[in-house]
Amino acid sequence: MTHGSIFVGELIGTAILILFGAGVCAAVTLNHSKAKGAGWVVISFGWGFGVLAGAYTAAPKSGAHLNPAVTLGLAMADMTGWGDVPYYLLGQLAGAIPGAVLTWLVYFAQFQANADQDNALPTLGIFSTAPEIRNPVANLITEIIATVGLVLPILFFGKNLGTGIGLIPGTTAYGSGIGILLVALLVVGIGLSLGGPTGYAINPARDLGPRITHALLPIPNKGTSDWGYAWIPVVGPLIGGALSALVYKAAF
Amino acid sequence: MTHGSIFVGELIGTAILILFGAGVCAAVTLNHSKAKGAGWVVISFGWGFGVLAGAYTAAPKSGAHLNPAVTLGLAMADMTGWGDVPYYLLGQLAGAIPGAVLTWLVYFAQFQANADQDNALPTLGIFSTAPEIRNPVANLITEIIATVGLVLPILFFGKNLGTGIGLIPGTTAYGSGIGILLVALLVVGIGLSLGGPTGYAINPARDLGPRITHALLPIPNKGTSDWGYAWIPVVGPLIGGALSALVYKAAF
Amino acid sequence: MTHGSIFVGELIGTAILILFGAGVCAAVTLNHSKAKGAGWVVISFGWGFGVLAGAYTAAPKSGAHLNPAVTLGLAMADMTGWGDVPYYLLGQLAGAIPGAVLTWLVYFAQFQANADQDNALPTLGIFSTAPEIRNPVANLITEIIATVGLVLPILFFGKNLGTGIGLIPGTTAYGSGIGILLVALLVVGIGLSLGGPTGYAINPARDLGPRITHALLPIPNKGTSDWGYAWIPVVGPLIGGALSALVYKAAF
Amino acid sequence: MTHGSIFVGELIGTAILILFGAGVCAAVTLNHSKAKGAGWVVISFGWGFGVLAGAYTAAPKSGAHLNPAVTLGLAMADMTGWGDVPYYLLGQLAGAIPGAVLTWLVYFAQFQANADQDNALPTLGIFSTAPEIRNPVANLITEIIATVGLVLPILFFGKNLGTGIGLIPGTTAYGSGIGILLVALLVVGIGLSLGGPTGYAINPARDLGPRITHALLPIPNKGTSDWGYAWIPVVGPLIGGALSALVYKAAF
Repeated sequence: MTHGSIFVGELIGTAILILFGAGVCAAVTLNHSKAKGAGWVVISFGWGFGVLAGAYTAAPKSGAHLNPAVTLGLAMADMTGWGDVPYYLLGQLAGAIPGAVLTWLVYFAQFQANADQDNALPTLGIFSTAPEIRNPVANLITEIIATVGLVLPILFFGKNLGTGIGLIPGTTAYGSGIGILLVALLVVGIGLSLGGPTGYAINPARDLGPRITHALLPIPNKGTSDWGYAWIPVVGPLIGGALSALVYKAAF
Repeated sequence: MTHGSIFVGELIGTAILILFGAGVCAAVTLNHSKAKGAGWVVISFGWGFGVLAGAYTAAPKSGAHLNPAVTLGLAMADMTGWGDVPYYLLGQLAGAIPGAVLTWLVYFAQFQANADQDNALPTLGIFSTAPEIRNPVANLITEIIATVGLVLPILFFGKNLGTGIGLIPGTTAYGSGIGILLVALLVVGIGLSLGGPTGYAINPARDLGPRITHALLPIPNKGTSDWGYAWIPVVGPLIGGALSALVYKAAF
Repeated sequence: MTHGSIFVGELIGTAILILFGAGVCAAVTLNHSKAKGAGWVVISFGWGFGVLAGAYTAAPKSGAHLNPAVTLGLAMADMTGWGDVPYYLLGQLAGAIPGAVLTWLVYFAQFQANADQDNALPTLGIFSTAPEIRNPVANLITEIIATVGLVLPILFFGKNLGTGIGLIPGTTAYGSGIGILLVALLVVGIGLSLGGPTGYAINPARDLGPRITHALLPIPNKGTSDWGYAWIPVVGPLIGGALSALVYKAAF
Repeated sequence: MTHGSIFVGELIGTAILILFGAGVCAAVTLNHSKAKGAGWVVISFGWGFGVLAGAYTAAPKSGAHLNPAVTLGLAMADMTGWGDVPYYLLGQLAGAIPGAVLTWLVYFAQFQANADQDNALPTLGIFSTAPEIRNPVANLITEIIATVGLVLPILFFGKNLGTGIGLIPGTTAYGSGIGILLVALLVVGIGLSLGGPTGYAINPARDLGPRITHALLPIPNKGTSDWGYAWIPVVGPLIGGALSALVYKAAF
């Protein structure tokens, strides 16, 4: 894969991921949505199948990391070259922003209706994560452990396949699509089990890109972009990805 | 595949798709149904597994497009011959009508009971889509983007497999069934994430065929067939399919 | 496969299927169950994953039909020998009875508590199906069409694989397990979409075996076994299986 | 696989399993969790996808049993060597404890908030199982049969593959990941269908390890660890695993 291919694949794939992920948060949150109030099972499956959609798309161009914590873990575990890492990260962050814009366009009429009603709902929760109990140390630990729950299985199963869990093009496992399906369901599981306290960013690009977008978009009555919390869903997942690689290297 | 095989496969497969898809809308909407009020998660999985059922059935005859937007995208991406396109489209539209009739027969007693009650529920929502907020431009944009969320992953993953994502008979990926499963779950994800504003037609045949059926069936107190909205779920998905092919051709 | 192997495989597999399927009905229906009131999504996935469990188990012995309507369809489509059919049917009916007994044992304390309370709930719904609106013609049509939704995809996809959809041992598709997974999800979809009017027997053994068991078990205050309805979930699915085979033979 | 590899694989894999499984119980139970009250479908899928995550991780080291009842069944069916059994069991029990600690850390702020509120909720249900109706004989029978529902399909399908259902490294089925996916969905099904009476331990390590952890952790107002019930989710699953192996040996 060339650097250009990696950048383009990650950009498009992350855009699709955020379109679906932010989309399901809009679907469940906003008034005048058919999925209003559909609950946590819908949120978790929506994000997981967003991984499916984004990884599908990115796979032939970049191998579908879509997440700086995954890229960091794969690089530390010698499954991705360090020279490729910047192109992965740039593509991921660059892709998250148009993805969030697309979500806003899909739910444009709903955002307008929200702005027009008395007591407009704050809209940041559609784009980025926020903790239920604000406690930086506890929130950081939650994000670290939840990310280990994502990256550790990817690395270990990749070891068995010899290639990363279906993330690298040209292998049978990848071609069959089963690797992408398993990671998508793993992300559903993380949402169901570990998302309760902080909304499971587990991906710096997934949180930071949409937060930037939220700050920039001309949504009336959109509420705060909560920059004070923004470092936790960046730092926590990166620590989790690195820890996963250390456990992997100790085990093999 | 002969033109006759394509037509028959698409007809039967689309009939099965609509039987399941309109079926789940009836199941959740009508009184005296065991699934009454079961909510958006049931709607989304019902439509997705309807894709599974229909694509299963159509696959050995036609490769299972079941959707004019998919056919258009595959043709523009040179994965389907233009000479086959009319047979795909005719089969899809022809199949949607008996599919909708079968749904009506499955829920015949429930439709009768609905007609007999005071304040009979309008029944169009069982057959075709309607927006929560009626705004043609916003609704059209929603349908365009949601369809990109379907067709773009199909094209990109197909590129990797070299054959379309399991849609063309005779390949390993198709034979294993994993391609059909992945597209079915992708459709679940579109429902969960992007279906809130318009009910995600993302398929002109899925909306137009059942709307024609609704207009023709002798259901008492059935309410309007809402022809004023009918062009949006036809035009939007076709634009989305075409845009997906343009992005695909730019990327490869 | 010998006749003995077929009989044993179908007996054990159908017992597991009914254990899970009747189990989820008990789970959602009875008081003092942690899943009480969990709704239609739980019912549909519970039955579908019961197919997964039962087919897993039966597969190496019998190829996992678990359903007289499937056996009839496969035999008419020349995918199963007519000489094997009686052993399939006997195994299916024989297996459904111990399966229903096992469900009763799993929920024994809940059945006792139900019998002891004022206004004990009728228990037949845990074992067998009943329509929401009692209308023999409409109910029969519902069961016929819903069974076509099961058997037609199995036959068509089997045509493509050349072997029945993973139902016959020794093929790659079967060995990989993907065929069983697809049929299990297909059954989830039938429940979600087509189960509303009659509770989707779509399988004579699934309904008749547990109804016999319900009539025989010493459950206090168990209510009626509703023999007047018992023929519909036997005759309807058999017609549906036969119709599926006729469509299949016309198409290929 | 060396004994050390087995021990390490089971330890890490069981830790991940419990992190997800206890995690989803915390998610649904505790106040200030985004999944509060999300219900039985979330519990069942959360545990099932915890199996996916844990088995992913353990697979290349140990073959991913993660459950003494599975190990016992596989050993009695001659699919695992008796000499390896102690290393499986030690790894499973040893892994369940750090897994439960990680769950506590993920939900640390929620546990603190629970302890500080009037009428703090008892917390044992997050870690270990408890019956809805306390009746040792009935509860034991429930756990036995539910475990047969897990181990019997694994053994029978393993027979067909010749290797255990994807549990033993180096086989195609394992490498493709489909075996792990099928077992994960089987566990979802057991939860949905058979979990109502006792909360489906079906795994001695899954219940005993977190119960020990609950007793040791410094959680304020944590409530009883209910040692009087602790033997049932240990003895019941072991009997179920052994019974499954006896049925398997009789059938083949």
